Amino acid sequence: MKAEIIATGTELLLGQTVNTNARFLSEKLAEKGIDVYWQTVVGDNAQRLETALRLALSRSDLILTSGGLGPTMDDLTKETVAKVLSLPLVVDADWNEQLTTMFKLRGNVMTNNNLKQALLPSGAKLITNDNGTAPGVWLEHQDKTFVLLPGPPRELEPMFTDKIMPLLPASGSSLVSRTLKIVGIGESSLEDKLAELIAAQTNPTIAPLAKLGEVHLRLTAKAQTRAECQQLLDLTEAKLTERLGEAVYAKDEQTMATVVAELLEKSQLKLALAESCTGGYLAHTLTNIAGSSKFFVAGLVTYSNAAKSKLLDIPLQFIEEHDAVSAEVGRAMASNVRRAAQSDLGIGITGIAGPTGGTAAKPVGLVYIALATPATVTCQRFNFFGKRENIKERAVISALNMLRLYLMQQLG
Amino acid sequence: MKAEIIATGTELLLGQTVNTNARFLSEKLAEKGIDVYWQTVVGDNAQRLETALRLALSRSDLILTSGGLGPTMDDLTKETVAKVLSLPLVVDADWNEQLTTMFKLRGNVMTNNNLKQALLPSGAKLITNDNGTAPGVWLEHQDKTFVLLPGPPRELEPMFTDKIMPLLPASGSSLVSRTLKIVGIGESSLEDKLAELIAAQTNPTIAPLAKLGEVHLRLTAKAQTRAECQQLLDLTEAKLTERLGEAVYAKDEQTMATVVAELLEKSQLKLALAESCTGGYLAHTLTNIAGSSKFFVAGLVTYSNAAKSKLLDIPLQFIEEHDAVSAEVGRAMASNVRRAAQSDLGIGITGIAGPTGGTAAKPVGLVYIALATPATVTCQRFNFFGKRENIKERAVISALNMLRLYLMQQLG
Repeated sequence: MKAEIIATGTELLLGQTVNTNARFLSEKLAEKGIDVYWQTVVGDNAQRLETALRLALSRSDLILTSGGLGPTMDDLTKETVAKVLSLPLVVDADWNEQLTTMFKLRGNVMTNNNLKQALLPSGAKLITNDNGTAPGVWLEHQDKTFVLLPGPPRELEPMFTDKIMPLLPASGSSLVSRTLKIVGIGESSLEDKLAELIAAQTNPTIAPLAKLGEVHLRLTAKAQTRAECQQLLDLTEAKLTERLGEAVYAKDEQTMATVVAELLEKSQLKLALAESCTGGYLAHTLTNIAGSSKFFVAGLVTYSNAAKSKLLDIPLQFIEEHDAVSAEVGRAMASNVRRAAQSDLGIGITGIAGPTGGTAAKPVGLVYIALATPATVTCQRFNFFGKRENIKERAVISALNMLRLYLMQQLG
Repeated sequence: MKAEIIATGTELLLGQTVNTNARFLSEKLAEKGIDVYWQTVVGDNAQRLETALRLALSRSDLILTSGGLGPTMDDLTKETVAKVLSLPLVVDADWNEQLTTMFKLRGNVMTNNNLKQALLPSGAKLITNDNGTAPGVWLEHQDKTFVLLPGPPRELEPMFTDKIMPLLPASGSSLVSRTLKIVGIGESSLEDKLAELIAAQTNPTIAPLAKLGEVHLRLTAKAQTRAECQQLLDLTEAKLTERLGEAVYAKDEQTMATVVAELLEKSQLKLALAESCTGGYLAHTLTNIAGSSKFFVAGLVTYSNAAKSKLLDIPLQFIEEHDAVSAEVGRAMASNVRRAAQSDLGIGITGIAGPTGGTAAKPVGLVYIALATPATVTCQRFNFFGKRENIKERAVISALNMLRLYLMQQLG
């Protein structure tokens, strides 16, 4: 089965948006063993979209489009597909009703242009959209299949994964990728460590990708079935984990935060945070996880010295004596927030996120991260580099990693 | 002049890489006033690349390719362009010598496959590569121009900016875009409000883009010079601002957070936060701004009732009486954090981010946002929808918008 992806949107042709939908769809189709031979981008222009669709029809079996399903005049995809296939557009009564109800619930009247979103090429199956008002379309016509998807990635991605993937045929060969996430080892020393293995290995292939504060290893296996791919991936993963040990912190969709959240739940320990230079990013990262209220008690973002003193009960004199960015203040933040919030664990983070505020002795990127446990308080010093947001992110990853290593030890 | 971009690379079709080259080139071409009508991706496959090139030749004047210029067998771009144009490949003696010297300097012998990189279609101009071994190619043939660029963005981008941009014709026209950011009006009611204007307006064009919790209007003007474009944009911006008033909160790179930060600095008011369901996201958003310590005093993430009671001094009985997710508790959070942190303004946010924890009376997405000022405490009730992260984000945008409207009023 040959697949082709057509993304519509003048913003793509103007370089205002990057075509992440094509990447996402290609990856998902590869998982199913479906070959993507072409990706095309056209503007919000009926004539050029028609040309692209006719060309796709002449050379591909499965044609996926993204964008152009919304309520506005630029949104032309359904209309153009219907024209190319000489099909009339019909109203989907259910979706029409759902839209009307949705607008009513939000206290708005549905404007006429929204009605357009309930139109479908005759014979098509409507794919409901849980994250927006424009539904997707599944349309089998003669020996071709069209899948029309909304443009916003937050709508397209869950719709494709949950509702389109199960409708796609299984193919004769499968390509499965797995990503191992590594922290605490740089990309070049990692490649040095693994050079032989990477060179010797052809199935799965191993590709290192440098990320902020971590490295991902992408393994890609090819075999007749997904199960065989998984077996090949398991073998290589075992080899890599043997060499890299606890530096391998996660796989695939797992993130540092989800891994730590799982360990916290397992250990039944409660956590409180005192953040200075990360400014609430660690609290935000952990509270993005559904159910985080089970282990997350409270976070304090104490930016000024006065706030550190008043909210965390650290004497101003102590802060001035040691400097707000110091191991001593980091430790005091961790201990005192643990006590104040009556939690089992406390984290304190203090540092200089920049771009200003650095000195020769305490440069931008210097960050102290302390972890207070029922038994001890430990503190690590880090020298991060990069922009303000990157320093915040590296500090959050490092704090979570300290927590991860502590919890792994506790859980044995 | 019509341009078309062809990116080659099987990794793009497998979804392992996102096509940032197409975005970059499109943006640069728009700056030059050159219209990009098509972007295509093909794998490392000579036959399909040939098809794409012939199609481009039939409909475009300027054809840009990325990738396929390296030393390996997969690298087919120059060979295929030469074939399509019936041109022989010839060795570029200078580049050949440079390559040999470069390999010698690094203490390596140049392998034979590297020689391939010094081959050019006859009549082409070699474009040196300061960041890699594969040069680019500029080829004028009859009335068409081909620009062949290396695939890695760190090679393609400087080569294009420094060496190709000056070779491109001044199109005699310029294309400049401006984005107006709108909050508090949905995409479809916005379009309803502006339908006439959008339809009547052809230069600049107006394209609405739905974003999370806001809508962007992208204005794109075409004229002979950038200055004329700016004038056209100013006129349309004035018309839009007149109709939409304070719903227009920012332009281009400005974000809701940078706008609010500027207003806070101007007003010299200090801010403290008490967040429940947003879990520190508002603090994180504000502290991403360099210099936020000037106005941001402290943030409390009080997730549990116990934390609300202990850290914000709200009696547990009061919380139980009114429920943690209520206007009363939101107001108390705002007032008490303002007092505790000795700031001028306090924000309190309490709600249900989901996915669990909702009831019929208090569904997922219900959020109360309160703003305490020296004079009053106001509270608004919101019903957001979407995933946990989206609800957090919508709440943060709404809280910042409340702050923005208050500060604008204060500053007159």
